[in-house]
Amino acid sequence: MNMEPIFYPPTENEIEQRVKRVQARMLEEGLDHYVAFCPDNIFYLTNFANAVHERPFILVIPSKGIPQFVVPQLEIPHVKARMVGDIELISYFEFPAPRGQAWSDRFKELFAENERVGVESICPLQIYTETPGERVRSDIIDDIRMIKSEYEIGRLIYSCELATKAHDLLLKSAYPGMSLTEMATKVRGFVMNQLAKDNKKINPLATRVTAVFQPPSVSHDPHNFTNIDMVMEEGGPHVSIINAVMNGYGAEVERTFFLGKVPEKAKKPFEIMMEGRRIAFEMAKPGVLMSEVDLSVNNFFRKQGMGDYLLHRTGHGMGVTAHEAPFFAEGYDRPLEKGMCLTIEPGLYIEGVGGFRHSDTVLIGETNLIMLTDGPVDIDELTIPLHKATAV
Amino acid sequence: MNMEPIFYPPTENEIEQRVKRVQARMLEEGLDHYVAFCPDNIFYLTNFANAVHERPFILVIPSKGIPQFVVPQLEIPHVKARMVGDIELISYFEFPAPRGQAWSDRFKELFAENERVGVESICPLQIYTETPGERVRSDIIDDIRMIKSEYEIGRLIYSCELATKAHDLLLKSAYPGMSLTEMATKVRGFVMNQLAKDNKKINPLATRVTAVFQPPSVSHDPHNFTNIDMVMEEGGPHVSIINAVMNGYGAEVERTFFLGKVPEKAKKPFEIMMEGRRIAFEMAKPGVLMSEVDLSVNNFFRKQGMGDYLLHRTGHGMGVTAHEAPFFAEGYDRPLEKGMCLTIEPGLYIEGVGGFRHSDTVLIGETNLIMLTDGPVDIDELTIPLHKATAV
Repeated sequence: MNMEPIFYPPTENEIEQRVKRVQARMLEEGLDHYVAFCPDNIFYLTNFANAVHERPFILVIPSKGIPQFVVPQLEIPHVKARMVGDIELISYFEFPAPRGQAWSDRFKELFAENERVGVESICPLQIYTETPGERVRSDIIDDIRMIKSEYEIGRLIYSCELATKAHDLLLKSAYPGMSLTEMATKVRGFVMNQLAKDNKKINPLATRVTAVFQPPSVSHDPHNFTNIDMVMEEGGPHVSIINAVMNGYGAEVERTFFLGKVPEKAKKPFEIMMEGRRIAFEMAKPGVLMSEVDLSVNNFFRKQGMGDYLLHRTGHGMGVTAHEAPFFAEGYDRPLEKGMCLTIEPGLYIEGVGGFRHSDTVLIGETNLIMLTDGPVDIDELTIPLHKATAV
Repeated sequence: MNMEPIFYPPTENEIEQRVKRVQARMLEEGLDHYVAFCPDNIFYLTNFANAVHERPFILVIPSKGIPQFVVPQLEIPHVKARMVGDIELISYFEFPAPRGQAWSDRFKELFAENERVGVESICPLQIYTETPGERVRSDIIDDIRMIKSEYEIGRLIYSCELATKAHDLLLKSAYPGMSLTEMATKVRGFVMNQLAKDNKKINPLATRVTAVFQPPSVSHDPHNFTNIDMVMEEGGPHVSIINAVMNGYGAEVERTFFLGKVPEKAKKPFEIMMEGRRIAFEMAKPGVLMSEVDLSVNNFFRKQGMGDYLLHRTGHGMGVTAHEAPFFAEGYDRPLEKGMCLTIEPGLYIEGVGGFRHSDTVLIGETNLIMLTDGPVDIDELTIPLHKATAV
């Protein structure tokens, strides 16, 4: 397995192999065409990232031959500039449009009569309605995306190494009173500069860098991303978050950390979170059901009297986004396979105490688990002395 | 009509009136429930802005009584912190989930047997599939959103005034060699600071500020937002773009401008664009079909031999997003009504010469058109002397 970082765009051959894997699955499912609307799926098969707006972009994949890409005419020049691989462009002028000149008119022409057509779970009703033939709900591309190629592993390694460095900088910069804006400017700035240095042509539509923290007064509410006036406080638990897509490949690293001192009431939950994390790391091997990993962690938490403090599953997949299938989740009875990339991040959230979560991005190897991100994990290492924790 | 800027969140009464308008339309269409997934529609009816991820947020509106909002449990605290109006929260634990505990289990319980249920055009197949009863495609909320309330007009006036100031700053800052990053940092920074000053609790999930330009080598390709290494050049045409959603309400202002000199070949297209723009401004009054406005502008361009240089319609709606229905577009046979807010921005795009487009945000009044944004329009005013156009 290649374990070197890669930061160049996919080759024609890489894209061709992806399309072939999709077409092989279409054959198994007896599909004549497959309709992809999800911009992440389209990016995966074309290297072109589109913002979703009212003018649809739709990739239509035949069971044999090259994909056809329905795109608004005004997008053609930059589709051509970014796209990799052999794709036929089918353009329409505008939305809305006079009868006979709409995207749907060009779209419907691509199908023969009485076809069996795969459509994604997230397909909008307005596209589903215009799709002719027997429509079968199917998430082939999402499925294929779960198993990473050698090239993709190299891209994820690059992203995870830079995320690790960004997270080190975040911890090193932490002091009581530090604002979200100051943190984001410093750490996000560091990542963006490095990306632009490593590839002058990075695509901003495939790049999103989140570098934030939640202070003890908020960390029990892990999806609170809308209080813009948060500042770091003495004590903890704070939760740090680096979640990023770096020109098309994601990474995540998060830590529970303290400034100066650890409140007494935070010690036990930290310890229990760490043991839940250890259980997940030990279990996550090829062949193990992802539901089993989540269930084991959650049952351990419940036995410790922490069942009321669970707010989310143990982890999620990583790839061309920083948050996708597969999932370490009760009810998700799918085995881990070599080449899957996920986060491991069991968490506990106690109002009045705070949030407890470390997250790392891991790769499933032949028989083992490979950590792609890194950082301190113990409570002592994550208690930043106040004499270091001051603005400079 | 109130023409004072407003920058406070909607009152309970404002939200209640919106829900009532939706329910009145549901009655007309004979719908028992309406299922809203579009985050902009949900924001419009709740003041809560959600990022779309794999855990669905679904607003279910009954024909009578208060809306029910299906949300992941981990989002409850900040839903409560932002939401305005009387809404019942229905939570589910996680996605994926064991049988009986999924979002779809809670969702399906909200309907009686044999109901007629409205679903949006953008409803994902996976939600459409789980919706019971007779499903009817319907875009009631999108329709209601087209006609602005007094409160909304005040919000749009605030956004447009700030967008105008931001655009003035953009033009004042322009010099050959200026990079996208420098421009974005300066102008976006100015807007973000002003927003935070005017309301410390602005919601970053309802705020997006784009402050960019396209230099003459790119301006013929108006949707090229992915070349991050663009810099301003001597001459032109450059196209400036301020497009922003400011804590929930949008604005747009754009100009074709030159640095130091106007190339000979740019003079005629500029003049023709200006005449197209004049035609649109003159026609845009209550009762006139939006398709007619676009057709008149486009036919004028075609008569001038510019038919090959059209890439988009004359304009789009503005509201809780900065880009939405209704549209000045051929084929969109809907009359303008009092309270609609749209951009007017006919454009011409000539490879080797450049792009020509001014955009302003306008409000349709009782009998007239009211400009909400402002800025220089003539070629002389938009040719910035080089002695002014230097870095400071």
